[in-house]
Amino acid sequence: MAKDFTKRSDDYSKWYNELVVKADLAESSDVRGCMVIKPYGFAIWEKMQAELDKMFKATGHSNAYFPLFIPKSYLSKEADHVEGFAKECAVVTHYRLKNDPEGKGVVVDPDAKLEEELVVRPTSETIIWNTYRNWIQSYRDLPLLINQWANVVRWEMRTRLFLRTAEFLWQEGHTAHSTKDEAIAEAEQMLEVYATFAERFMAMPVVKGIKTPSERFAGALETYCIEAMMQDGKALQAGTSHFLGQNFAKAFDVKFATKEGGLEHVWATSWGVSTRLMGALIMTHSDDQGLVLPPKLAPIQVAIVPIFKGEEQLKQITDKVNGLKKELLAKGISVKFDNRDTHKPGWKFAEYEFKGVPVRVAIGPRDLESNQLEIARRDTFEKNTVGFDSAADYIEKLLEEIQENLYSRANEHRVDNTRSADTWEEFKSLIDNEGGFVAAHWDGTDETEQKIKTETKATIRCIPLDQPDEEGTCIYTGKPSSKRVLFAKAY
Amino acid sequence: MAKDFTKRSDDYSKWYNELVVKADLAESSDVRGCMVIKPYGFAIWEKMQAELDKMFKATGHSNAYFPLFIPKSYLSKEADHVEGFAKECAVVTHYRLKNDPEGKGVVVDPDAKLEEELVVRPTSETIIWNTYRNWIQSYRDLPLLINQWANVVRWEMRTRLFLRTAEFLWQEGHTAHSTKDEAIAEAEQMLEVYATFAERFMAMPVVKGIKTPSERFAGALETYCIEAMMQDGKALQAGTSHFLGQNFAKAFDVKFATKEGGLEHVWATSWGVSTRLMGALIMTHSDDQGLVLPPKLAPIQVAIVPIFKGEEQLKQITDKVNGLKKELLAKGISVKFDNRDTHKPGWKFAEYEFKGVPVRVAIGPRDLESNQLEIARRDTFEKNTVGFDSAADYIEKLLEEIQENLYSRANEHRVDNTRSADTWEEFKSLIDNEGGFVAAHWDGTDETEQKIKTETKATIRCIPLDQPDEEGTCIYTGKPSSKRVLFAKAY
Repeated sequence: MAKDFTKRSDDYSKWYNELVVKADLAESSDVRGCMVIKPYGFAIWEKMQAELDKMFKATGHSNAYFPLFIPKSYLSKEADHVEGFAKECAVVTHYRLKNDPEGKGVVVDPDAKLEEELVVRPTSETIIWNTYRNWIQSYRDLPLLINQWANVVRWEMRTRLFLRTAEFLWQEGHTAHSTKDEAIAEAEQMLEVYATFAERFMAMPVVKGIKTPSERFAGALETYCIEAMMQDGKALQAGTSHFLGQNFAKAFDVKFATKEGGLEHVWATSWGVSTRLMGALIMTHSDDQGLVLPPKLAPIQVAIVPIFKGEEQLKQITDKVNGLKKELLAKGISVKFDNRDTHKPGWKFAEYEFKGVPVRVAIGPRDLESNQLEIARRDTFEKNTVGFDSAADYIEKLLEEIQENLYSRANEHRVDNTRSADTWEEFKSLIDNEGGFVAAHWDGTDETEQKIKTETKATIRCIPLDQPDEEGTCIYTGKPSSKRVLFAKAY
Repeated sequence: MAKDFTKRSDDYSKWYNELVVKADLAESSDVRGCMVIKPYGFAIWEKMQAELDKMFKATGHSNAYFPLFIPKSYLSKEADHVEGFAKECAVVTHYRLKNDPEGKGVVVDPDAKLEEELVVRPTSETIIWNTYRNWIQSYRDLPLLINQWANVVRWEMRTRLFLRTAEFLWQEGHTAHSTKDEAIAEAEQMLEVYATFAERFMAMPVVKGIKTPSERFAGALETYCIEAMMQDGKALQAGTSHFLGQNFAKAFDVKFATKEGGLEHVWATSWGVSTRLMGALIMTHSDDQGLVLPPKLAPIQVAIVPIFKGEEQLKQITDKVNGLKKELLAKGISVKFDNRDTHKPGWKFAEYEFKGVPVRVAIGPRDLESNQLEIARRDTFEKNTVGFDSAADYIEKLLEEIQENLYSRANEHRVDNTRSADTWEEFKSLIDNEGGFVAAHWDGTDETEQKIKTETKATIRCIPLDQPDEEGTCIYTGKPSSKRVLFAKAY
């Protein structure tokens, strides 16, 4: 499995690409920029979906489904939105193919040209707000708390599996509210949901913050985000939640009758996470031996490998293992008993290690005699011999321990690689030599932000929410600043 | 709710359209032929998805995800497939918009023309088999049992919500096998899964059968189907499972090394059900008072409506109801306690009736005194007063009873409307005057099938699997036939 596998220290980017393919998570398709998510990768995404969906529903949201296509003219209805989004899209211009008159397969039928071109949704604010106009008349119809799980397309020129693909899968929440405060509270609530999900399930610590104006979502008044730090010290934006003000309500004329009898524009939010989270998960925990998965998102939590010669031995082991399997399943733990005779135990060990299965159990004829088995954990490679009768409890505790260990390890890495800079020289040196997050003062202008980006490739990841105010001076211009912001190079 | 609601006997088609919109299931969007699935409708679809997904996984399948776009040339690789599918598709020709030089929004950028057009998938056999070529080398890689939940687009000219829309949601299973027998067994197994789902969850009886050659899926050697009968006597194809032979393996050059060291083409199946099932569900059970849902697919199984004046009464009722809610939730029953003070109880009764909530509970101050409540069932409108302490058990049993009653009612309707015809006159008269299914002998030729269709609008829905052989003569040509086939007008 891991042979010919690039080391992280040799080429982090190459390591990532190889891992995604070799661990059977995803691969490029023949269609430019579009990936195939393979069963093992999709099983992880399904676990993410299931947990997020539960959290959305627990906070009062319902799922719905809106069209894949958006009439071209919709994109230009919200002025900022068209600037930020309309450009790199897949455009449907025709609705029929016909047999090639020259007999070479099929060609586009020129007679089947659409009157107005359709764009494959890059995000759905426009089509959804056009729909909400008919759904919202009165304050009684509010809040409207809707989410959709969907595929979206943004025609990216440089793509990377999971991190940036032309088509990707995501969820987009779109809510409508009667007051500004309620909409802001919703946007902040969903940021909390994302942060909780990242930390509790992905074992990935995140910084919660707001984006600078230049990094805001096209059409938003405020963009909240969670930023995670990858193993190479680069930042990855893992989720965003937008307070959209009344921009889309005005663009699509969505008004509601207030309790007091007035007529006002509705307040909006939108928020999303995508299959990009798969990239974040991989780059937070995995190592030179392959994938490392937090138990809460692992499709297989425990792999049991029998070591046997012949049918009789396998049968004895199987009888023994069946009891353990049952105990584990009763605890809600997913188990794979790999009794294939087409592959050797060593091959299987390597396979489960490479695929990041958190716990691997080995059991052979000698173990049967001594009534014990070998339990190995993927995160630290530690192995222990455990009595058979206490194995299920041991594994249950071990899975919790691994989940926690992955979080602390990632958190330690983040703390170790978050530094402060007070001068421009210090800042440049940290960005160039150390990487990671650099907390520094900034004068609050787009101009300075842009210059720092041009000179160092570092961007302002966010203005962290949970930090004390601190007077200081901008590292670049020396102008006064009231709080530090977080810089980093980013994915 | 139900005012201005068309009766089924007046105009079944109008009744259906109104019901879908008024019950908040779905509505047309501004994009031609594309629907918006509203939260209530989507919640039903989610329940269907969850049950089907469990059944697919229990039979060994995994989910994956393949690209939305298919290169145009792929469609013409399998000869029959291109004839059946390639034509009415959404075609992506460009990948960028730009600001209109005349300042009117955005226009397609002529410089961003794709070298090869992309088609939005109408079904994914071609792109998936192109991918399988790299996944399958040896018999060890087989069987490959994969499903995907996805949106697909077929540019339909005449669309109807759920029944026929340009974009729809579905699942498509695509499996690869080393032998013909195994592939046929898979196609048959998935037909069984669909039939079980339809009968057990949708409470919708179905006929399992195979399609005639002219009605086969484009590229299939055999198409299995389940056919259901709607209330108006028309048939609806509710799911199909295809044995594809080696057609796609040959078209995309997918071979495997056999155990014996040979090299052979892989055998294939594909199978799917779609949001069309929503239409089938509606037209199987609903009535002139609105939607009727089988409890197993109802997003809300029990609605509890308090009848109160003032906060104090509501509080007393709420205290009482909380216990019942808890008991019901513990039984896995979904409950909505509708304590809104913005709507009157009568309005709520009408709402839940129209939306097909299987059980409605009413509780007022007098009920508190007598320690009982009123329980109404949606299917028969029967009401009973039940002691509070036995209410949870009563409701649990009632839900099972409703599920069964809906199935028997639908089954009775189907049995009553399935008739045999032995002469052409008899056949025509049944099709014209009675509708429903007509079992008749057919000589097995495309020509006869086509003529019968032209003259009566009835098509052969299927050759039923579970029927005895019976010698007879074709109703149209008088030629010999060994079994009856099922004719009907169809959706």
